[in-house]
Amino acid sequence: MQAIYVGIDIGGTNSVFGIVDSEGKIIAKSSIKTDKHEDPKIFVKEISEEIKLLLDSSAQGYKLSGIGIGAPNGNFYTGSIEFAPNLKWKGVVKLAEMFSEYFDCPVKLTNDANAAAIGEMQFGGAKGMTNFIMVTLGTGLGSGFVVNGELVYGADGFAGELGHTIYDYEGRPCGCGRKGCLETYASAGGIVTTAREELRSYKEDSELKDLPKNELTSKRIYEAAKNGDKLALIVFDKTAEILGRKLADVIAITSPEAIFLFGGLALAGDILFKPTNSYMEENCLVIFKNKVKLLPSLLPENDAAVLGAAALVLN
Amino acid sequence: MQAIYVGIDIGGTNSVFGIVDSEGKIIAKSSIKTDKHEDPKIFVKEISEEIKLLLDSSAQGYKLSGIGIGAPNGNFYTGSIEFAPNLKWKGVVKLAEMFSEYFDCPVKLTNDANAAAIGEMQFGGAKGMTNFIMVTLGTGLGSGFVVNGELVYGADGFAGELGHTIYDYEGRPCGCGRKGCLETYASAGGIVTTAREELRSYKEDSELKDLPKNELTSKRIYEAAKNGDKLALIVFDKTAEILGRKLADVIAITSPEAIFLFGGLALAGDILFKPTNSYMEENCLVIFKNKVKLLPSLLPENDAAVLGAAALVLN
Repeated sequence: MQAIYVGIDIGGTNSVFGIVDSEGKIIAKSSIKTDKHEDPKIFVKEISEEIKLLLDSSAQGYKLSGIGIGAPNGNFYTGSIEFAPNLKWKGVVKLAEMFSEYFDCPVKLTNDANAAAIGEMQFGGAKGMTNFIMVTLGTGLGSGFVVNGELVYGADGFAGELGHTIYDYEGRPCGCGRKGCLETYASAGGIVTTAREELRSYKEDSELKDLPKNELTSKRIYEAAKNGDKLALIVFDKTAEILGRKLADVIAITSPEAIFLFGGLALAGDILFKPTNSYMEENCLVIFKNKVKLLPSLLPENDAAVLGAAALVLN
Repeated sequence: MQAIYVGIDIGGTNSVFGIVDSEGKIIAKSSIKTDKHEDPKIFVKEISEEIKLLLDSSAQGYKLSGIGIGAPNGNFYTGSIEFAPNLKWKGVVKLAEMFSEYFDCPVKLTNDANAAAIGEMQFGGAKGMTNFIMVTLGTGLGSGFVVNGELVYGADGFAGELGHTIYDYEGRPCGCGRKGCLETYASAGGIVTTAREELRSYKEDSELKDLPKNELTSKRIYEAAKNGDKLALIVFDKTAEILGRKLADVIAITSPEAIFLFGGLALAGDILFKPTNSYMEENCLVIFKNKVKLLPSLLPENDAAVLGAAALVLN
């Protein structure tokens, strides 16, 4: 019987899950609300029942061979979600163990950015690469590091928190309680903050002026930049400078073949990639210059999280 | 026949080499001048002859099973020294290949800090550890990262340049041509610069005042600190703050079990370790707090480079 896999992406609001074949094709996909479930056990019961229905309806004749889960603060070693600030479940939640009560196959769990890195290696642009970095630019900045062909989980299972390296010790307050973390600048949230800051003193015309507060989004800033709006381009340039500098720093640590950018902000394409690449090169130690490719993820935006999660159990 | 190994540590002035058994015992050791040799081929010929003499006199009955070399800008993948600023040999020097003309055994080469990391794993305090960082605090700051039990060489063989991550983009000029690299602050050279800067405005008494320029060394600053000299303690505190902050950053990347400090400055013991550990913890992302041990290297100061180089071929 051919093997089939389940990928589950657990988000603060929704959890998406899909049936994935060994080629990375999503055979079926569905979702349930995460935030409706105060008790993770009931959440796991419900999502397991849904998965079984999906398997019955779309994957008959296949053998379920693994369940991979991407989750905020997911610990690969313990299979637990540990103290995730964006979930209702507090403390340590042994999610992989809970799923094992419903399925007789390996269940693995890691954080979403690590899952994306594995997905990129299995199904995306990092095929055949053994040293690369995946950077996810969403609400925050997540990252997964692959070294010698293996994901870097570190001693405790939590490695790869590039978003929480410090750019400016006197900088912006971060959700983590410290100041100046990279993700407060280089993320969908960070670029909006930068736009707000720039707007305060910007004298010329701009599409971004006088927008209602909730309409000043990273997408809106990108659209303005695409229209050639000078302020929006300045905002992208400032974001790229900070991201490029910090990427140059991590290049000095793991010397990757490529860095992949993924997520909402990465969809800005050249508007983000060109200046980021240029600042990255400018700030690289000479031995690393012109070696590291800055690339867009080749994972499909909407399915990346599920594919990444499934890729966790595919090897 | 029992296996025996040769470790060679190539420095700008001297190159030290030793015969090492599989337990990490140095059976014999010698050195030749590096900087007397403009032509690396003649250097390799001479050191090879010396090694053969040493093997004949002290390792009869053993089988030479590998030669490991630690060298500035050493590339593990190519076995070459590439554009080393502190050596007379310019460009790319295929050193491993040159040694292979004299010896019928594997020859491996990497940079000195990577060699130290492997030495620490094989013979020192990192025995049994699979995720740790080695930081060498000498004239500059070198580092070797071990992840999943393997040294991180990266895509090009040059990974692990923690000393050239940036602490302050408007900071001190670095030998690499950029500004504010960590090694301009946290190294034997960096602490002397910090002392000079502090001396300019320090009003109270200090042992370090009015010293001839060449006597203001990291060792002298350490001795003053040990005597309770307030200025020297301030200088150590400032050094520790910067080092601790940057260690917190790399913990977020590779989440090591331990960080080992090695080299001249690390001999300061508690005077360096206590404040560095305290700043490191203060700056760690909450999930990494109180997890990472900051430890002194257990390699013997004088033999570490040779042991590390030999450890390269021991596995």
